[in-house]
Amino acid sequence: MSSVTIPPPACMLRPLEVPLRYLFGPGPSNVPPRILAAGSRPIIGHLHPEMYEIMNDIKKGIQYAFQTENNMTIAMSGSGHAAMECAVFNTVEPGESVLIAINGIWGERVAEIAERMGANVHRMVKTPGRYFTNTEIEQAIKKHKPVLLFLAHGESSAGLCHPVDGIGDICRKHDCLFLVDTVASLGAAPIFMDKQNIDILYSGSQKALNAPPGTAPISFNDRACHKMFNRKTKPVSYLFDMTHLSNYWGCDGKPARVYHHTGPVSGFFALRESLAILAERVKGYFPTSSVTFLNKKSFSSLDLRLPSVTTIAIPEGYDWREMLTYIMKHHCIEMTGGLGPSIGMVMRIGLMGYNCEKTNADMALHALADALKNCKKSKA
Amino acid sequence: MSSVTIPPPACMLRPLEVPLRYLFGPGPSNVPPRILAAGSRPIIGHLHPEMYEIMNDIKKGIQYAFQTENNMTIAMSGSGHAAMECAVFNTVEPGESVLIAINGIWGERVAEIAERMGANVHRMVKTPGRYFTNTEIEQAIKKHKPVLLFLAHGESSAGLCHPVDGIGDICRKHDCLFLVDTVASLGAAPIFMDKQNIDILYSGSQKALNAPPGTAPISFNDRACHKMFNRKTKPVSYLFDMTHLSNYWGCDGKPARVYHHTGPVSGFFALRESLAILAERVKGYFPTSSVTFLNKKSFSSLDLRLPSVTTIAIPEGYDWREMLTYIMKHHCIEMTGGLGPSIGMVMRIGLMGYNCEKTNADMALHALADALKNCKKSKA
Repeated sequence: MSSVTIPPPACMLRPLEVPLRYLFGPGPSNVPPRILAAGSRPIIGHLHPEMYEIMNDIKKGIQYAFQTENNMTIAMSGSGHAAMECAVFNTVEPGESVLIAINGIWGERVAEIAERMGANVHRMVKTPGRYFTNTEIEQAIKKHKPVLLFLAHGESSAGLCHPVDGIGDICRKHDCLFLVDTVASLGAAPIFMDKQNIDILYSGSQKALNAPPGTAPISFNDRACHKMFNRKTKPVSYLFDMTHLSNYWGCDGKPARVYHHTGPVSGFFALRESLAILAERVKGYFPTSSVTFLNKKSFSSLDLRLPSVTTIAIPEGYDWREMLTYIMKHHCIEMTGGLGPSIGMVMRIGLMGYNCEKTNADMALHALADALKNCKKSKA
Repeated sequence: MSSVTIPPPACMLRPLEVPLRYLFGPGPSNVPPRILAAGSRPIIGHLHPEMYEIMNDIKKGIQYAFQTENNMTIAMSGSGHAAMECAVFNTVEPGESVLIAINGIWGERVAEIAERMGANVHRMVKTPGRYFTNTEIEQAIKKHKPVLLFLAHGESSAGLCHPVDGIGDICRKHDCLFLVDTVASLGAAPIFMDKQNIDILYSGSQKALNAPPGTAPISFNDRACHKMFNRKTKPVSYLFDMTHLSNYWGCDGKPARVYHHTGPVSGFFALRESLAILAERVKGYFPTSSVTFLNKKSFSSLDLRLPSVTTIAIPEGYDWREMLTYIMKHHCIEMTGGLGPSIGMVMRIGLMGYNCEKTNADMALHALADALKNCKKSKA
């Protein structure tokens, strides 16, 4: 066979159009020119020694960002969901019991992932934005005897930064691994993987790190490694199998790194640069929190507001969709509504990393005020 | 807790170093400036209407590249392995029988993936570089009654372009889906998904398409959709579940696209541009084949040499590793050895898409000649 019957699509003869946007939602965030430039460097092979060197740099950068000395520290070739699946697939075997803290969308996602791979899933559920006390967590662990506890440190759907102090110790006491999601919080809220006894920690590239989406830092401590490298069954995914990924990242002590999959070379260049910017910050580890700029009525409980994503209760008498559309149309600013269980309950404003500047907060507040003036539906 | 104990890593205070390389291996290939520029455009949100428009363009571009009218055509947020897992996870249920044609590394990979998700895997094995006749394939299908047959169109580990005419008809006759891997062949060797009755086809971004690695086109026809959307069990991966991915790509007919995962925005910009370049080529659909440039003693059987990757038998009296190291050191050119079963048997030279120019072939041949002159170990 040799003849083409599907013609070239007309849309492809138009130039690529990408509007300029202020990404003040829960991510992705705007990417600084230095990171964009790194991502557009001519590529090299994914198995060249110079690429391994860049991957080694990324590993060191993640260790710093996570505050860990874990050797088993890599970046996934995928988004935060890839890290989520990698964490669960590798450390849990079918039939084993896991405990998932759900107070927003991320716990729901991990529960869904764990169920699909055959785990026995137990859910602890709270209203979005509420947090779990250490006592509640210990009671649930005693009851369900899980091999793994999941908690989102940055619950971006509710704007909550969940306390983690002490939970790692409880998990250790009950021989359970502590898995923490910092996709929305890393680089914006303090996290100390080693000191806080977190066994598995992951994040994403496109939030406070300001790299394009598509890579996801993840780290496993010795307890997690012991569990995942002494299992009876293979993980359901070949692509996310840490036996192979640890070799690709030079973490397994073997002299040769063997071809596993083709890593996103440009994405790694960009991630490396985003971590370098984090390492270079001399005035302190964490950027100014958006909460100090956007100290509005918060949706989340107590004072545990997530610095990177501020949730604002929808003002009475307003349609949140209309407000967001108005702000995008008139100010080129992305803010978003809720996500999963918080849809229709909140609006979310994110000022992450590079975006976390007072001028941007002023722009966001100005746009909000403009929308409040022009989108009112009724008296409250 | 609040104090940092892991200091900023010194390696991160060095600038990013990326050497210039001629990527004349089996991929990734050099990325043209236009595609690098597209990938470095300031990003927008993954759920913005303009992003959906770019994704729609990508869909059209893949339909053209695959020569298909399949509505269920998307790009994976991952490498070719993500597409591999997506294809198998969605169309096969645990306990079902699959038949894998293995004549190089890719069939081995798919067999491994299918076994992990619980399929009953049957292997047809040939020496690397040999091909399967349609009669052999039909006999094996009759024997094993698989729900899926896998074949690599571009067996890059052996440099073989496998014939596919007629196999789709055989599969249809026996109620089996025909899954084809074109990671190494798309854009270099003709493929006609619809005319050749291929039910599931996937590829990668980083070979003849010349985009950075990290995205992977995939398409399912109506037969494949019928099987994957009428299953009893959920696919083991949430991230690769086509129920969600088809919604994210606007292929399921539903009015709203719901958040599933964060797609690699920059990667999609670059992929869009690579497909646009393919669509704009007026002088013919396929680029000049590297085989016409590098008409050396080929490793693969008959005259079914893969145009994108030419395999050359290792000259007697030479150490292939030493030759490759010499060529990299003195010419900044990447060529590679074999992969999987072809390690130690061949050297591989790829001239893909943008790289497929006579000047580059001359450079490659000059470098090879220089290595032959300087790396000889013994008389044959």
